[in-house]
Amino acid sequence: MIKFFEKDPYAPIQYVYEVERVLHKSKSEFQEIMVIENPYFGKMLILDGVVQITERDELFYHEMLVHPLMHAHPAPKKVVVIGGGDGGTVREVLKHNSVEKVYFIEIDEEVINVSKKFFPTVACGIDDKRVEIKCMDGAEFVKGREGDIDVVIVDSTDIVGFAKSLFTVEFFKSVKESLTDEGMFVTLSESLHFHKDLVIEVQEAMKLIFPIVDLYTASIATYAGNWWTFSAASKKHDLRQMRREYKIDTRYYSDEIHNQAFMPPKMYEKLMQRKLQW
Amino acid sequence: MIKFFEKDPYAPIQYVYEVERVLHKSKSEFQEIMVIENPYFGKMLILDGVVQITERDELFYHEMLVHPLMHAHPAPKKVVVIGGGDGGTVREVLKHNSVEKVYFIEIDEEVINVSKKFFPTVACGIDDKRVEIKCMDGAEFVKGREGDIDVVIVDSTDIVGFAKSLFTVEFFKSVKESLTDEGMFVTLSESLHFHKDLVIEVQEAMKLIFPIVDLYTASIATYAGNWWTFSAASKKHDLRQMRREYKIDTRYYSDEIHNQAFMPPKMYEKLMQRKLQW
Repeated sequence: MIKFFEKDPYAPIQYVYEVERVLHKSKSEFQEIMVIENPYFGKMLILDGVVQITERDELFYHEMLVHPLMHAHPAPKKVVVIGGGDGGTVREVLKHNSVEKVYFIEIDEEVINVSKKFFPTVACGIDDKRVEIKCMDGAEFVKGREGDIDVVIVDSTDIVGFAKSLFTVEFFKSVKESLTDEGMFVTLSESLHFHKDLVIEVQEAMKLIFPIVDLYTASIATYAGNWWTFSAASKKHDLRQMRREYKIDTRYYSDEIHNQAFMPPKMYEKLMQRKLQW
Repeated sequence: MIKFFEKDPYAPIQYVYEVERVLHKSKSEFQEIMVIENPYFGKMLILDGVVQITERDELFYHEMLVHPLMHAHPAPKKVVVIGGGDGGTVREVLKHNSVEKVYFIEIDEEVINVSKKFFPTVACGIDDKRVEIKCMDGAEFVKGREGDIDVVIVDSTDIVGFAKSLFTVEFFKSVKESLTDEGMFVTLSESLHFHKDLVIEVQEAMKLIFPIVDLYTASIATYAGNWWTFSAASKKHDLRQMRREYKIDTRYYSDEIHNQAFMPPKMYEKLMQRKLQW
């Protein structure tokens, strides 16, 4: 059987997947886009040689990127999703009845088109009438925006290449200004196993801008290092407390997982003091 | 650079590691033993083509295999370690001052010798005077033993091949009989991402024998599926409660992690009802 060798220059383990079929291959203005079919994971979306989602396990990443904040916020109505052209994050956001508007900011339109064609169960929310798609740089979208957004979610590729602009202090400042007084913000921040220093850097940069910054994790089998971190920030409310009842349909996230996913306080302190040793 | 392609027939992702040097290669009565050096993980022990430990991340597995039960037990004195020829589990057990005797039952003496030579920071407890090494089948060792053991720890290779005898109802029964009335037992039980059905099977088999059975997890970067499970059983005491003060030296395990690592109750129920879907 043909094999796909993942090309992630920042991962000390290379992941190799069997390929039943190559369903799509194209080159957009921004990246190489590929869809393959794997006997275990089903269809897989690959950007510039790095696995973004698989049909089988995308639920873990998308649920955990979206639902902790959407439950910590008292009433999220306007949500910005930056990146995540596959639509999985938008799908999860739309599970919340309080949501009136989703600004879906994906720089690469081609990813949206490919996902609509090959991942209908992931892209299913993209055409919802609450969703407004804008194909532009997310940093540009939030810049100078008045404080009307409840939750900003960054669902980018790894913190390298063109996604870099989404991890700068300037960007975090723009995000803060775009948010209401109760606003919240979350972004992926790589693996605690493989990129601990980078996790700390993202946390430190967020702390320069937001009064409340926190960190939670989930295990994701197809992301290098697997012990995946989500860096979250808030202008007013603590993020560990749920302010809304858990009554949406999920497969991994739950009220139990909300309580368990945040890094415990003493461990968090050790992390930020660079005293966690591995 | 030379590459090592892991040969795990039960993993839907193949892991590939760079090889700076091959330090050792031999064939024992039981398996092929290899030690390689990797730029990120340091030295790695590989048995029959599957990574067992790496210098960099062995702490996660060994600490989590040992310390939850050693803290749930009121006073562990006699401990049996089955497998784990590298010595990492024994090293962690010996951190507990209450321990008077460790029966270290490793079927393959060659693994112990290789580990002593190449992994001195892992094998460092093997020559402790409290440790008695027996090179034999762990199932044979516990069979017919009077109830004098406080904790039995199985640190085997994957639940296939010759380690299979350590995952049968008969073995669990022998373990129970070998334990004191307050005795406890823990074994690895593979990945929640990749081997959910197998996790359930181990839990079900344990429940046929022990009144208290539980499940906790940790993320381990070098084990396929990463969201690694530990199946634990007890004759009398609940395992989630710590009965001893946390005052040993660890890098990942802590009282906080003890409280966080066990699967939450509703999720556990769904798992056992085969309602977790991924």
